[in-house]
Amino acid sequence: MRRIKTSPGQYLNQLFSISKNYKRFNQRFDIFNRSMWDDSIDPKAFYVSYDITNYKPKKSEGFKHWDYALRNASWHLTDFIGERNPERVEGFTDYYTLHTQGPPQKMELPAPEECSQRIKRAAAMLGAGMTGICEIDERWIYSHNFSRQTGEAKPFDLPEHLKYAIIIITPMDYELTKTIPSAIGGSSTGIGYTTSLACANGLAQFITNLGYEAVASLNDTALSIPMAIQAGLGEYGRNGLLITPKYGPRVRISKVFTDLPLAIDQPIEFGVKQFCNSCRKCADGCPAKAIDQGKAQDSPPNISSHSGIKKWTVNAEKCFKFWVNMNTDCAICIRVCPYNKDYSKWWNRWAIKLSDSFLRKLLLKLDNWLGYGQRKKPDEWWNLDNLK
Amino acid sequence: MRRIKTSPGQYLNQLFSISKNYKRFNQRFDIFNRSMWDDSIDPKAFYVSYDITNYKPKKSEGFKHWDYALRNASWHLTDFIGERNPERVEGFTDYYTLHTQGPPQKMELPAPEECSQRIKRAAAMLGAGMTGICEIDERWIYSHNFSRQTGEAKPFDLPEHLKYAIIIITPMDYELTKTIPSAIGGSSTGIGYTTSLACANGLAQFITNLGYEAVASLNDTALSIPMAIQAGLGEYGRNGLLITPKYGPRVRISKVFTDLPLAIDQPIEFGVKQFCNSCRKCADGCPAKAIDQGKAQDSPPNISSHSGIKKWTVNAEKCFKFWVNMNTDCAICIRVCPYNKDYSKWWNRWAIKLSDSFLRKLLLKLDNWLGYGQRKKPDEWWNLDNLK
Repeated sequence: MRRIKTSPGQYLNQLFSISKNYKRFNQRFDIFNRSMWDDSIDPKAFYVSYDITNYKPKKSEGFKHWDYALRNASWHLTDFIGERNPERVEGFTDYYTLHTQGPPQKMELPAPEECSQRIKRAAAMLGAGMTGICEIDERWIYSHNFSRQTGEAKPFDLPEHLKYAIIIITPMDYELTKTIPSAIGGSSTGIGYTTSLACANGLAQFITNLGYEAVASLNDTALSIPMAIQAGLGEYGRNGLLITPKYGPRVRISKVFTDLPLAIDQPIEFGVKQFCNSCRKCADGCPAKAIDQGKAQDSPPNISSHSGIKKWTVNAEKCFKFWVNMNTDCAICIRVCPYNKDYSKWWNRWAIKLSDSFLRKLLLKLDNWLGYGQRKKPDEWWNLDNLK
Repeated sequence: MRRIKTSPGQYLNQLFSISKNYKRFNQRFDIFNRSMWDDSIDPKAFYVSYDITNYKPKKSEGFKHWDYALRNASWHLTDFIGERNPERVEGFTDYYTLHTQGPPQKMELPAPEECSQRIKRAAAMLGAGMTGICEIDERWIYSHNFSRQTGEAKPFDLPEHLKYAIIIITPMDYELTKTIPSAIGGSSTGIGYTTSLACANGLAQFITNLGYEAVASLNDTALSIPMAIQAGLGEYGRNGLLITPKYGPRVRISKVFTDLPLAIDQPIEFGVKQFCNSCRKCADGCPAKAIDQGKAQDSPPNISSHSGIKKWTVNAEKCFKFWVNMNTDCAICIRVCPYNKDYSKWWNRWAIKLSDSFLRKLLLKLDNWLGYGQRKKPDEWWNLDNLK
């Protein structure tokens, strides 16, 4: 793993290939928000399954009532906290507002490097798997804030004094991702959000308690993936997701914006670009054909992704249509990704190092040969040993 | 580790030594509730530190502003959810009421053994470290429900159809417990509660989604430790705490009461009684002298513990007075306990097996010799590596 050396002020342009016509993304075009106003997208069969009082699940394995019951429960705390104010959907269109007041004065601080170390220590204790810090670049902040209540999108800016973003990585349950596509597999997303909610809000309250300002955010407010790349937590993958060196693509991302003076992290490279250029497993595995077989591009397939930045981008329309037809979320592109491994095992830590070398094509063959990424029967998950 | 074979209807009396004058515990006498109405207990210096806007921390290591800032943040979600209704203190005097409605019909169920397996699988996914199931014995249910708002305690009964309790064990952060006594060490309690809150409420919502009734509870409603012993999760230790075979005493306990038909667990023995008879580390280590050096007894030191059951009982008055004087909670009896080890290491898993043999006194000497249980400097915790 190499830290990318960048010069201040220039490093975003070194790290990303951003064209001059780049525009901040309007939240109104996010596929979930679009489904609220764009008649070409009918999300009914997707959302109806989140209301267990009315939903009649299928009888097929992984899509039974028990599976939906647990998937919905995994979201419960996130929904309860996020939807308590009818005018906001905190965590999805709006940032969180559950902090209690901090002290009247800002606390004295150690050097920014020491501050960053303490923030990362606190985040790890509060449930983060990885934490990185970057300066906020307004290009990642949504240009407009969408209201699901009014259907309107209003121009949005984050206050300038919130200069830093702390990016939190929460791993998703590995065993659950093996069962995808399935309703039960969707629990790995739900619990990922719930853990992120607790961690980001806990961390924001901690910073508030130091006398500084902090705003906790999940999918709302800003694009998480480029911020995570900037904060040294991973690289873009072909599946359009963040690939981390510790959990591969099996992560949720949350963030805390703050005026606490912090030392920032340098971006990393560990061969993802080269590996994804050789590998097509996510593109081949996607039933919706939503993932491109070709090279990274700066023009997205439709209005639901931001344009003017060269990267692999999933076709959100095709992707979401598949979710709707399946009555749950999908993440086959996480399951089949050769980076989706259990890195607590030494052999997988070795493999990810070798994937960043001329051996990458051999490793890809080995991955196929060993049967990694194949779907496990969802009912097997229910019968797993309960000891962690 | 041995499962204790018990016969239905009799097994509580086989497992616990309960005298005929046993009475259900009145929540009003819990030391925290007592501090609200009993003038002999002055909790001010304890509670004031939980309001960071007014508190002026000391300058000593582990008790600085940063330490309190994080400790309070670790409690934030638990406080926010638990205190949202001014008439209830959910998780502490009252059970939780945040569930959304379930389906109109009860779902068809597999055999109780299979139901229990699925419940434990779901709990593990939602954050539980261990899960056990027992039948509810009304002797563990508080006789009276205390209201902090009115200062009154009203007779309380759990509905009879809630026949089972699912007991959830959430581990506390090992590295943090090493710093106790310290404000930062109190974060291990706060985050333990927050994880328990998410897990117990997620599990109760899951059962609700199956069409059954479920009530999530932390310290409210019933005595957690005897229920956890009954559910096969551990034994009573000299420090009055539950000693588990997976985390020792380093746990928080939460529970879900339900009418879902479940198979129950058998209690376990792994030599804790014999070991605690030989060991006095918690009693010697307690600055408040709140832990008895003698044998287990059925008469508690004061009204803040239930009587008529033979066990080691901490003197809650002395214990809490020490907390108040220190301006944070204490758990030296967890830190110094020879069962407080990292059982992900094979050598500690061996040691706990040997502690259940004639080698227990030798192990105790080895424990002292190797320096286990000594306090680490709190500032070292802030500088630990952030990789888990």
